[in-house]
Amino acid sequence: MTKTLTFAEPPDELQLESGRSLGPVTLAYETYGQLNEARDNAILILHALSGDAHAAGYHEGEDKPGWWDIMIGPGKPFDTDRFFVLCSNIIGGCKGSTGPGSTNPETGKPFGLAFPVITIKDMVDAQRHLLDHLGIDRLYAVAGGSMGGMQVLQWVAAYPERVARAIPIATCASLSTQGIAFDEVGRQAIMSDPDWRGGDYYDATEPRRGLALARMVGHITYLSETSMHNKFARRLQEKAEYGYDFATDFQVESYLRYKGDSFVDRFDANSYLYITKAMDYFDLARSYGSLDKAFARTDADFLIISFSSDWLFPTHQSKAIVRALRHNNLNAVFTEIKTDYGHDAFLLESDKIGPLIANFLADTAGRGS
Amino acid sequence: MTKTLTFAEPPDELQLESGRSLGPVTLAYETYGQLNEARDNAILILHALSGDAHAAGYHEGEDKPGWWDIMIGPGKPFDTDRFFVLCSNIIGGCKGSTGPGSTNPETGKPFGLAFPVITIKDMVDAQRHLLDHLGIDRLYAVAGGSMGGMQVLQWVAAYPERVARAIPIATCASLSTQGIAFDEVGRQAIMSDPDWRGGDYYDATEPRRGLALARMVGHITYLSETSMHNKFARRLQEKAEYGYDFATDFQVESYLRYKGDSFVDRFDANSYLYITKAMDYFDLARSYGSLDKAFARTDADFLIISFSSDWLFPTHQSKAIVRALRHNNLNAVFTEIKTDYGHDAFLLESDKIGPLIANFLADTAGRGS
Repeated sequence: MTKTLTFAEPPDELQLESGRSLGPVTLAYETYGQLNEARDNAILILHALSGDAHAAGYHEGEDKPGWWDIMIGPGKPFDTDRFFVLCSNIIGGCKGSTGPGSTNPETGKPFGLAFPVITIKDMVDAQRHLLDHLGIDRLYAVAGGSMGGMQVLQWVAAYPERVARAIPIATCASLSTQGIAFDEVGRQAIMSDPDWRGGDYYDATEPRRGLALARMVGHITYLSETSMHNKFARRLQEKAEYGYDFATDFQVESYLRYKGDSFVDRFDANSYLYITKAMDYFDLARSYGSLDKAFARTDADFLIISFSSDWLFPTHQSKAIVRALRHNNLNAVFTEIKTDYGHDAFLLESDKIGPLIANFLADTAGRGS
Repeated sequence: MTKTLTFAEPPDELQLESGRSLGPVTLAYETYGQLNEARDNAILILHALSGDAHAAGYHEGEDKPGWWDIMIGPGKPFDTDRFFVLCSNIIGGCKGSTGPGSTNPETGKPFGLAFPVITIKDMVDAQRHLLDHLGIDRLYAVAGGSMGGMQVLQWVAAYPERVARAIPIATCASLSTQGIAFDEVGRQAIMSDPDWRGGDYYDATEPRRGLALARMVGHITYLSETSMHNKFARRLQEKAEYGYDFATDFQVESYLRYKGDSFVDRFDANSYLYITKAMDYFDLARSYGSLDKAFARTDADFLIISFSSDWLFPTHQSKAIVRALRHNNLNAVFTEIKTDYGHDAFLLESDKIGPLIANFLADTAGRGS
């Protein structure tokens, strides 16, 4: 079940990277397994753009489990017989934590664009309150893919004393120019939708078309040319002949429209703006002077995983992280998984990354937390 | 100066691949150099999605020449001292040839979506009328990049007796699944714009936001990750700090917005729908049973050029064309140009492709037309 933590009073108000502050802040989170007496078996899982705190197990009435259920549970790579696994939703989202759809205490209405622009650092700072609340001084590990991986890197940079192991997957220390470009297209699609109304749509129609378009663009970047070809090639939808109109002809068109439309039912357009902006802003080298300096204070061990066909978070970005870690004489294991699945591989290639993670967490060197 | 040819009466009406017919059909075209007495020195240049008939030279008052001026002129690779160079605009567009913005003779109003869906074959069939009109039986060469290259391939497949040499550049015999996906996003962006009004906007506001979005997406696919990085990296627009808002932060955002907005001033949204659909439908293997069969009747010599960082029309697609040509024992020279410019390289790498083309056209083997 998803729980929440709310912190409100200064000094517990969240001081944001922009200079603004946010409070009260609510964080949605889930936990699996038991925190041991030494409180040193906690693993923090961090989710990607459209994820949430519900990482594993089934909520009542659900026919699909949490988004990383295949990786989290008894005997699974994040073994809940041994570890206390914690998944925190991000601020800025729309899955139970404070975000642009939350009530603005100053107006009693949804924030909309009055919500402050938040960063990956702000997300992590909010999660730090959650660790304090749970009495966890030091995490056995912190792990996540895509934007979750950005949070992993931010964790070791900002709170080096609190992380023993880090598993950044399919991620980067700063988004590529092309990545920013795609994010900006998504944002423009939302903001071009007349239903967006400057972000003030919570008592009216949502900007469904704009958000669906943003998701369609995003979805193409999560797949690879090869995986799209393998899945759809140039196959037509139902009929054998071209329709010679602008209805759906190709299966890939129908698939993208479905992905766009179904996303709208579970996501908030303003959150899409805020979260993609946080991803664009993330730049460890900028924040710390250089990537080497960002890792100067951590003593964590690292398992870095990239995917050969991931063109949104390409392998060379993971290698740049590995180089900076090694410049700091840190223990960094790096693997590029050969796969056609593109960026989505971080959710799909669990057979390949599961054993790597289980082995990394096994702590045969007796490092402990 | 751009000239036009209009053909109207059956049997000169255009029978379309969809089964519908179109007439009267107007084609805009330009010519450079002189047709010789034998009428065997004509080279047909075919343009890409947003191109037009104005390939070379300056129109009165222009400060920028035609789109391939660097390649066409006296002493240039398409040497107008020797060749009669002809550039035909496509049907379906908005640059002087019949398209969805033209007057529908049945209603006296712009076609809008009453315009029939046209294909690459239909574009080429219309150009065939132009050759007949000019009295050119056989082209010395036919050349074009991107969608222009699709037309090149269609020319040799449909009119093998009329083409002596073919230069398909940065193109393919059928668009990839990913390419269709990006096109569909662009179309959905246009059709989601309330100003689109089902295509019936010619006496009202154009769907500017939708078309600008479509162009932004398209533009990303014309560049490479590397070229975007080299051009913009993560540099900010004007200010040194993040804006912490949704105005423009990064230069790449500003660039894309500019590219989108300026495109709207020179292009018609419905034409964007029709032309991208024609590209999606193009599939030589589907039309002729196999790619080998598509080239079974031509005896043309081929110069095929691809670009290493072009991910929209990747090299493996050019290689598939080369294989099919060689299965037919055709003379096919293939070159992949190493470049960071992505798909746009076909317009930018003239220093590299110019000499290849000049050499190919030099006809040292005395082949003639």
